[in-house]
Amino acid sequence: MRIIDIRDIVVPISSSISNAYIDFSTMTASVVAIVTDVVRDGKPVVGFGFNSNGRYAPQGLLRERFIPRLRDAKSESIEDARGLIDPAKAWAAMMKNEKPGGHGERSVAVGVLDMALWDAVSKAEGVPLWRLLADRYNEGVADKTAWVYAAGGYYYPDKDIQALQDEMKHYLDLGYSTVKMKIGGVPLKDDLKRIEAALKVVGGKGENLCVDVNGRYDLDEAIACGDAIAPYNLRWYEEPLDPLDYLLHAALATRYRPPLAPGENLFSMQDARNLIRHGGLRADRDWLQFDPALSYGQVEYLRTLDMLASHGWSRRRCVPHGGHQFALNIAVGLGLGGNESYPQVFAPFGGFADDTAVTDSRIAMPDIPGIGFEAKNKLYAVMRPMMA
Amino acid sequence: MRIIDIRDIVVPISSSISNAYIDFSTMTASVVAIVTDVVRDGKPVVGFGFNSNGRYAPQGLLRERFIPRLRDAKSESIEDARGLIDPAKAWAAMMKNEKPGGHGERSVAVGVLDMALWDAVSKAEGVPLWRLLADRYNEGVADKTAWVYAAGGYYYPDKDIQALQDEMKHYLDLGYSTVKMKIGGVPLKDDLKRIEAALKVVGGKGENLCVDVNGRYDLDEAIACGDAIAPYNLRWYEEPLDPLDYLLHAALATRYRPPLAPGENLFSMQDARNLIRHGGLRADRDWLQFDPALSYGQVEYLRTLDMLASHGWSRRRCVPHGGHQFALNIAVGLGLGGNESYPQVFAPFGGFADDTAVTDSRIAMPDIPGIGFEAKNKLYAVMRPMMA
Repeated sequence: MRIIDIRDIVVPISSSISNAYIDFSTMTASVVAIVTDVVRDGKPVVGFGFNSNGRYAPQGLLRERFIPRLRDAKSESIEDARGLIDPAKAWAAMMKNEKPGGHGERSVAVGVLDMALWDAVSKAEGVPLWRLLADRYNEGVADKTAWVYAAGGYYYPDKDIQALQDEMKHYLDLGYSTVKMKIGGVPLKDDLKRIEAALKVVGGKGENLCVDVNGRYDLDEAIACGDAIAPYNLRWYEEPLDPLDYLLHAALATRYRPPLAPGENLFSMQDARNLIRHGGLRADRDWLQFDPALSYGQVEYLRTLDMLASHGWSRRRCVPHGGHQFALNIAVGLGLGGNESYPQVFAPFGGFADDTAVTDSRIAMPDIPGIGFEAKNKLYAVMRPMMA
Repeated sequence: MRIIDIRDIVVPISSSISNAYIDFSTMTASVVAIVTDVVRDGKPVVGFGFNSNGRYAPQGLLRERFIPRLRDAKSESIEDARGLIDPAKAWAAMMKNEKPGGHGERSVAVGVLDMALWDAVSKAEGVPLWRLLADRYNEGVADKTAWVYAAGGYYYPDKDIQALQDEMKHYLDLGYSTVKMKIGGVPLKDDLKRIEAALKVVGGKGENLCVDVNGRYDLDEAIACGDAIAPYNLRWYEEPLDPLDYLLHAALATRYRPPLAPGENLFSMQDARNLIRHGGLRADRDWLQFDPALSYGQVEYLRTLDMLASHGWSRRRCVPHGGHQFALNIAVGLGLGGNESYPQVFAPFGGFADDTAVTDSRIAMPDIPGIGFEAKNKLYAVMRPMMA
């Protein structure tokens, strides 16, 4: 299995939304197509990858370093015993002459290419990626469905409480039972009104509502908010603090008893390990949101899962950020706790195969080769022209 | 003071050398020129910046995000009270819509631009950067000289012990008393022979020799090497471990008594703080090598120095990686412990103003406006054409 060509484009992944930290109006994503010499059903196997939201298209890094290194790697050096591309060997080729530490940006570039390689390999095998992952790394056991939740509730311009409630109701109508809203962008008393309004929509059940601060609070603010929302027993209190301030996480965890959910802005096994070692999190309740698309891909994610196991954490505590089909395949194939979903934003990159029904906040995966992009028309419309 | 134009080029910072982790034959650097509307001696003030070695030219990131944001920032929004550019405000403009965490790559792009802004501001003031920094942040006190050491001793192809000794002798002849060599790229017993050979050249004095592993060892290897070299009482044992594995640093520090020297692959105040909080380092002997050119520049470095002070660390424990004039100005202006120097590699970016004498491993800074690039002919030959 040889790489014939690697192509990349940049497309908007923008949205007229903002969270407590940034606005997303200029957000972009890179899409790559890795064309191989394997032919299936009369057509060359092409693997696709893209980066999820939050970190911008890494086109410069792709073109300056990571695409050339992958393209220039000798085929024999990145093959497995059966002659297929071995993503772990390809990963090593891409990371050649990269120093340790500094895991950001390049982790996105490598993640995009890693996603495309896994798509290509599972297509070459003629199986869905979730099946390939289950067979290789989970003793053949794949979950029948994945738990998903609807992430939204951003600070849309001029959005008021009625509009927030309408948005949340819409998610329930789509089949979700759990929804997530942004907080931390307005004074706490205003956020509390929004939280209580959203809680009403989900029947007053805290387990059906998550709140997300996007790392905006200092410790005082995180504790003040935590004290105010603790009685609601929310599903989780996401990223209240700077993602790298492990000590503050540990301090907050001594006081806030319901679940916390950090990790989406940690981009390597090493950073994830520091959160586990130093962050004072609780393996019986907290959630971990490392996003494989932003974090050197599935090859690195497997390292992170091994690290978690050695620290007594179940894979079920992992619910990746990003809302993409790549993480959905990983969730089903490796038995994670579920995955994020964006019913209204970050189109066409978020979401599932078309016609996927959400029932009780769970979905089933299609049984088609690869990650499943071809079953998601609006996304495939971006990818298909890259094969021309 | 307004920014008229921002230009960037990519140039090799390559060398036929390798350390224990990577080879440097494809290493590149970005050079930026920020042209302002301030006129001095009949010419517009232009600030220059570049990235030091280890992380590649960030041209894509510069052009995709950081140059456009700086160029598009309203002049009033990045001015200080006197109408000069305020680098901290410019920093905030560059980091707008960037999420927290993931400090790598973009920290280099921002560092390059930050360096150019400080060069421009000190030229507009008509003073050397070290003087400006001393006046603004060190109660007017600048050191008369800076301690420097000669970094080399790489694994050159076919280099043998005689060649290593010749190289070290050459550094002594140049006026250095302290030299540094790479280890970790060959079996320990071979490195020990190299270390003993280098020690002979510096008169058997461990305080005049540093060794650098570039993050290559695991804990067993780091302890084995540490046990072997502890009797030499070397000036420092640099980066024995993965830069983000704070727990391993703490473990090693319980056993290896002479000084350690990590930090060159940590690129933000947050990462540096984690090293200080969780790395078990010893404020009375260990050295910290955060490189402002790779770590969001001087604006962030000031935050790191504040963080260090609050943890009981003296600035004198800081000896930045990178061997550039930017860090030299910071060392003299803010009273650091010294700076790295590369007499034989990474030309023309490493080193001092031309005709700077090294005496007892110390140098004096020239008294010319800005960082001093104009007094370093081979470097200025790269920069000057950017003004055309």
